[in-house]
Amino acid sequence: MADGKVYRASTFAPVNIAVIKYWGKRDTKLNLPTNSSLSVTLSQDDLRTHTTASCSTSFTSDTLTLNGQPQDISTPRTQACLRELRQLRKHLESKDTSLPQLASLSLKIVSENNFPTAAGLASSAAGFAALVRSIANLYALPASPTELSRIARQGSGSACRSLFGGYVGWNHGSAADGSDSVAYEVAPAEHWPEMRAVILVASAEKKDVSSTAGMQATVGTSALFKARAETIVPQRMKEMEDAIRGKDFEKFASLTTRDSNSFHATCLDTDPPIFYMNDTSRAAVRVCQAINETAGRTVCAYTFDAGPNAVVYYLAADEAVVAGTFRGILGEKTGWEGSRGEKVEKAGQVPENIAGSVDTLQKGISRVILTGVGDGPRKTEEHLC
Amino acid sequence: MADGKVYRASTFAPVNIAVIKYWGKRDTKLNLPTNSSLSVTLSQDDLRTHTTASCSTSFTSDTLTLNGQPQDISTPRTQACLRELRQLRKHLESKDTSLPQLASLSLKIVSENNFPTAAGLASSAAGFAALVRSIANLYALPASPTELSRIARQGSGSACRSLFGGYVGWNHGSAADGSDSVAYEVAPAEHWPEMRAVILVASAEKKDVSSTAGMQATVGTSALFKARAETIVPQRMKEMEDAIRGKDFEKFASLTTRDSNSFHATCLDTDPPIFYMNDTSRAAVRVCQAINETAGRTVCAYTFDAGPNAVVYYLAADEAVVAGTFRGILGEKTGWEGSRGEKVEKAGQVPENIAGSVDTLQKGISRVILTGVGDGPRKTEEHLC
Repeated sequence: MADGKVYRASTFAPVNIAVIKYWGKRDTKLNLPTNSSLSVTLSQDDLRTHTTASCSTSFTSDTLTLNGQPQDISTPRTQACLRELRQLRKHLESKDTSLPQLASLSLKIVSENNFPTAAGLASSAAGFAALVRSIANLYALPASPTELSRIARQGSGSACRSLFGGYVGWNHGSAADGSDSVAYEVAPAEHWPEMRAVILVASAEKKDVSSTAGMQATVGTSALFKARAETIVPQRMKEMEDAIRGKDFEKFASLTTRDSNSFHATCLDTDPPIFYMNDTSRAAVRVCQAINETAGRTVCAYTFDAGPNAVVYYLAADEAVVAGTFRGILGEKTGWEGSRGEKVEKAGQVPENIAGSVDTLQKGISRVILTGVGDGPRKTEEHLC
Repeated sequence: MADGKVYRASTFAPVNIAVIKYWGKRDTKLNLPTNSSLSVTLSQDDLRTHTTASCSTSFTSDTLTLNGQPQDISTPRTQACLRELRQLRKHLESKDTSLPQLASLSLKIVSENNFPTAAGLASSAAGFAALVRSIANLYALPASPTELSRIARQGSGSACRSLFGGYVGWNHGSAADGSDSVAYEVAPAEHWPEMRAVILVASAEKKDVSSTAGMQATVGTSALFKARAETIVPQRMKEMEDAIRGKDFEKFASLTTRDSNSFHATCLDTDPPIFYMNDTSRAAVRVCQAINETAGRTVCAYTFDAGPNAVVYYLAADEAVVAGTFRGILGEKTGWEGSRGEKVEKAGQVPENIAGSVDTLQKGISRVILTGVGDGPRKTEEHLC
C-alpha cells in the first residue's frame, strides 16, 4: 500500500428530467422530499457526466475537479456521500482482510460534463450520480442502485433518480433517517424506448432563486403547497406509473404538463414569489399547444424545471411534427447540426396564429438539444485524469 | 304619458380593484362566486363611468351606448339587470298609482368612461354599477346599495362592489338564488383616506383568455383551486378586514400581494394554463420589492387582475418613495402630466440591482394612472345624451 499504486474506476451517468416534480424537503440535511417524484432518464449519448474516481497512497487529500476546474469537496453534501461510501468499503475490508485498504486513502475525483453546465440542465443530478457510482465501482461495492440512490440523494436530491435508466420514481419515504427515501425503476428504457425529448435552452439569464433556497421558501410560505404535496402529487404518481406501464402518451403528456404547471404555480404562490418561467417559456407552451392542435391529438408535452428552459417530450413516430416544427422555428440555432438533428426535417407548416410566440422563441432560445430516454450509469474504461 | 316627456337620471360610478380576488363562479348564470372577495373603490376623480338613464314614450326600444358606440343590450346579463330594476319600479307603481308608469317605457342608456376601455381596467365593474345606479335613480327606487349590488352582480360579478365607496367586501353567500351574495361596506373611504394607488398600464396586448372563460376553466381543471376557494380565501378575508379596520398597511400589503400571487398561481395551474402576468408584470413585482427593501419597511403592495397591468397600493405619506420611484423610471410616460402626477417628484435614487427590471418596465408600460381610495356612486345633474 505504500507503493503509490493508483486504483481507478470510471463511469458515465445520465441527466434526468422529472415529469412529476420534486419541490420541497421535509429534511434539508438528508434531502428528504415532501413528495415523491418521477423522471425520465435521458440518453448519455447526448447528455452525461463522465467521472473517474481514483485513490492512492500518493494522494495527500481528497480532491474534486469539474471540467478542469477545482471544486470545493468539503461541502456537507459531498462529504456525506464520501463518508457513506467509505463506510461501506470499510465494512467489506473488515470482512475480507485480503482486500486493499482503499477506504483510508485520499480520493481524486475528476468529472466532465458533455453539455454546458451553465445551461441550467440539472447537472448536479448527473454529477452526484456519477460521483457515487464511480466510487462504488472503485470500491467494488456490492451495493444495488437502490442503495446507491440513498447515498446520492444526500448529495443532490434528484441525483438519486440518475442511478437508474428509463422511467424512475423516487419514493418520499417516511423514515426519519431517510432509509426508505430511495429511487426505484418504474420501467426500463427498453419498455418504452420511443420516448424523445427536445430541450429548448433559453438564453443565459441569472436564476431567480436557487432551487435549494426556492423550494424551502415554497414549503414555508405557499398556502397552496400543502394540497400539492399531500393530495395532488400522490394521486399523480399512481396515474403516471400507470401511464408509463401502459405506454399511454396522452395520459403521460397530460400529467407531465399539469404537474409542471402545478409546480410553477406553487413557486408563484411563494412569498416573495418565485418566477422560473418567463415570456420565452410561455412562448414554448403556446407552440406546444399549437402543435397538438394542428395534429388533432396530443403529440407533445412540455415541462419546466427551476429555470426557463423547456423540455418537450414526444414519441419517435411524431418526430416530424414535433421536433420538425421546432426546427422550422429554430433551425438556425446550435444543436441541429449533430447526427440526430440532421435527421429532423423542418416541418412544412408552422401552426398559424402563433406568430408572436414564434418571434419570442427565436429571440429567447439560444440552442436546442435532441435526446430521448436512455439507460442508467455505464461503467467505462475511459479514465479522466 | 303620451306626451313624449323624457325622464332622466345620471350617475358617476367608480372602478374597484380587488385585494382579495374574485375568481370562479358557483353559478355562472347568476354570477355567484366560489369565494368572497374584497376591493378598494378608486376615486372617481381619476377613473369613472358616467351614465345617464332615460325613458320616454317617444323611445321605441331599449338602447345602450358606450363612448358613442351602440352596444348590444340584449345580452342575458344586461337583461337580468333591467328586468330586476323594472320589477322594483312596477312594485312601486302598483302601490302608488299617482306615479308615472316608467317601468313599461323603453330605456335609453348612455355611458362614457373617462379612461381607456382597452386598458384592461375592469371597466365592466364601473359600467354595470353605473347602469344599475342610474336606472335606480331614474325609477326613484328606495333600494339600498346592498340591494342594488345584488342586481349589479348579475351584470358583472365585481360590479357589485362598485356600489359602495371605500373598502368593500362581497360575500360569496350560500343561497341558490344569490339573495345573500351581495356587497357590503368594510369601511368607508374616510376611515382610511390615505390609501393611494399607481396603476402601471402595460402596452396593449390581447388578453390570454377572457376572465369569464378563464375563471370557469380554473374551477374545472385546477387541482390547487379548491384549497384557495375553501380554505385560503376565507381566512384571508377575515385578516384583510382586520387589517383595514386597524389601518395596518403592512398586513394589508402582505395579504394583497399574496392573494394576487395565489390567484395567478391557480391560473397557471389551469389546464391549459392561463398566463395574465408577463415579463413586464414581473418587472413591476421586482421594482416593488426593491422599493420596500430600500425603504426598510413595507411601503407598497402590488396586485394584478386578469391582465398584465400592475396596481400598486401605498399610503399618501409614502408617495415620494413609491410613486416617486416609478416616476423616476417611467417619467416620460403619459399620466404624470395631470395635477396629481405633477405633485409627484422623481425619487432621487432608483433601487440598485434592478437595472434589468427597470429596462423591462420602460419598454412594457405605456402609461400610468395616479389615484387613491374614493367614494361610491355620485348622483349628478350632468346628463349625457
